[in-house]
Amino acid sequence: MNNVIDLLKAHRSIRKYQDRQVDQKVIEELIRAGQCAATSSFIQACSVIQVNDPTTRQEISRVAADQKYVIEAPVFLVFCADMQRHKLACDMHQAEMLSGYTEQFLTASVDCALFAQNLLVAAESIGLGGCYIGAIRNNIARVDELLSLPEKVYPVFGMCLGYPAQDPETKPRLPVEVILKQETYDDKTDRDLIAAYDNKVRRYYHSRTDGKKDDSWSEQISGMLVKEARPHMLGYLRSKGFLLK
Amino acid sequence: MNNVIDLLKAHRSIRKYQDRQVDQKVIEELIRAGQCAATSSFIQACSVIQVNDPTTRQEISRVAADQKYVIEAPVFLVFCADMQRHKLACDMHQAEMLSGYTEQFLTASVDCALFAQNLLVAAESIGLGGCYIGAIRNNIARVDELLSLPEKVYPVFGMCLGYPAQDPETKPRLPVEVILKQETYDDKTDRDLIAAYDNKVRRYYHSRTDGKKDDSWSEQISGMLVKEARPHMLGYLRSKGFLLK
Repeated sequence: MNNVIDLLKAHRSIRKYQDRQVDQKVIEELIRAGQCAATSSFIQACSVIQVNDPTTRQEISRVAADQKYVIEAPVFLVFCADMQRHKLACDMHQAEMLSGYTEQFLTASVDCALFAQNLLVAAESIGLGGCYIGAIRNNIARVDELLSLPEKVYPVFGMCLGYPAQDPETKPRLPVEVILKQETYDDKTDRDLIAAYDNKVRRYYHSRTDGKKDDSWSEQISGMLVKEARPHMLGYLRSKGFLLK
Repeated sequence: MNNVIDLLKAHRSIRKYQDRQVDQKVIEELIRAGQCAATSSFIQACSVIQVNDPTTRQEISRVAADQKYVIEAPVFLVFCADMQRHKLACDMHQAEMLSGYTEQFLTASVDCALFAQNLLVAAESIGLGGCYIGAIRNNIARVDELLSLPEKVYPVFGMCLGYPAQDPETKPRLPVEVILKQETYDDKTDRDLIAAYDNKVRRYYHSRTDGKKDDSWSEQISGMLVKEARPHMLGYLRSKGFLLK
């Protein structure tokens, strides 16, 4: 429809990068673009930690399922949901902050996601590519410790950025009919639509791997969801002052 | 830097709309743009409910602090974190889904936020404007009921969209130096930077309200955080099968 929508629709994760640095001024401009995303009740609850130190990168990569691009990417950022800043704002006015609410955890986390998505779109618009690193949550307490995060701050995800040295295909998404529902939630036709989509995903993997990978969306999802999902998260988050009530 | 970054930096919430409909084909195109955002482990956990029915809109508006634009906006969408679809995928393969993990709540909620932000950027690129409606969580159980949401699906936020009939200023954000930190979390200079920013916000409100509103960022935040934050959220989410462990 226009070049912005074309850009959004061309998104794919980039995990291999040219040996070319990203200017610090550019990174700051990307942060500004991230900040311009909507923020719930103006809380601005996202902080970004830029990690350059090779030893820290190595250790985060080790935690994050040994993803080598965490070490190799010219830029590695960690997006943190930050309510420490709000504690400071309260202290500035001798106000006692009520914290620990699930609602606050949600709004701070969503704030980070809106920020990060704006930042990634901005990055892609100037020819950079990147990917989110959710795997930092594999051992989130260790990442927290490496970054010296205080109470009320937790790392939501990481992000690798750099000039792409690969050009993968975009990955087919679920049919719009499954995603967009009218007036109320209705999933009567979802099973058939997902079955048809499964075939599309299977063809995508086939063509990408010369027939080696034979997998569909529902198989992938069902294979993943029979396993525990980072069961340490609740305990960790509570230890940081989140999700207490 | 380029027209995409200019677009992102020009964002402001639009709450008044021209009396002009948005074509359904355009809405579907926006959904597709939303879907192209990154999705954690390919879970695609966002469903969108388009609400046109005036009675439902009226009731959601009532719940959402009587925000009239929920009734008036040409388009009103509710973004839902949806793991019902994953239950279906598991059923398709006779797999028993392990659910209730905090990690799953987080990834599904973040998925929705990335999706919604892409959708809003796409909307703004074609001349639409909009705003997020977090206030649907004021009485989230009522919104859930109105939309007939099943187990494992919850409404994260709403969004109003339409052709703008207002042109508000952009709102100044925190200094980059507060947001972007190097190597580890360090907030030693934050108090001074926030105090300077407070003055900037105060001038913004002054000029927007002809001197009637006298408020700073830290005052606004501290005023808000001495109150409870939607204390019903944890109970509601657990009743839907989220945040159980």
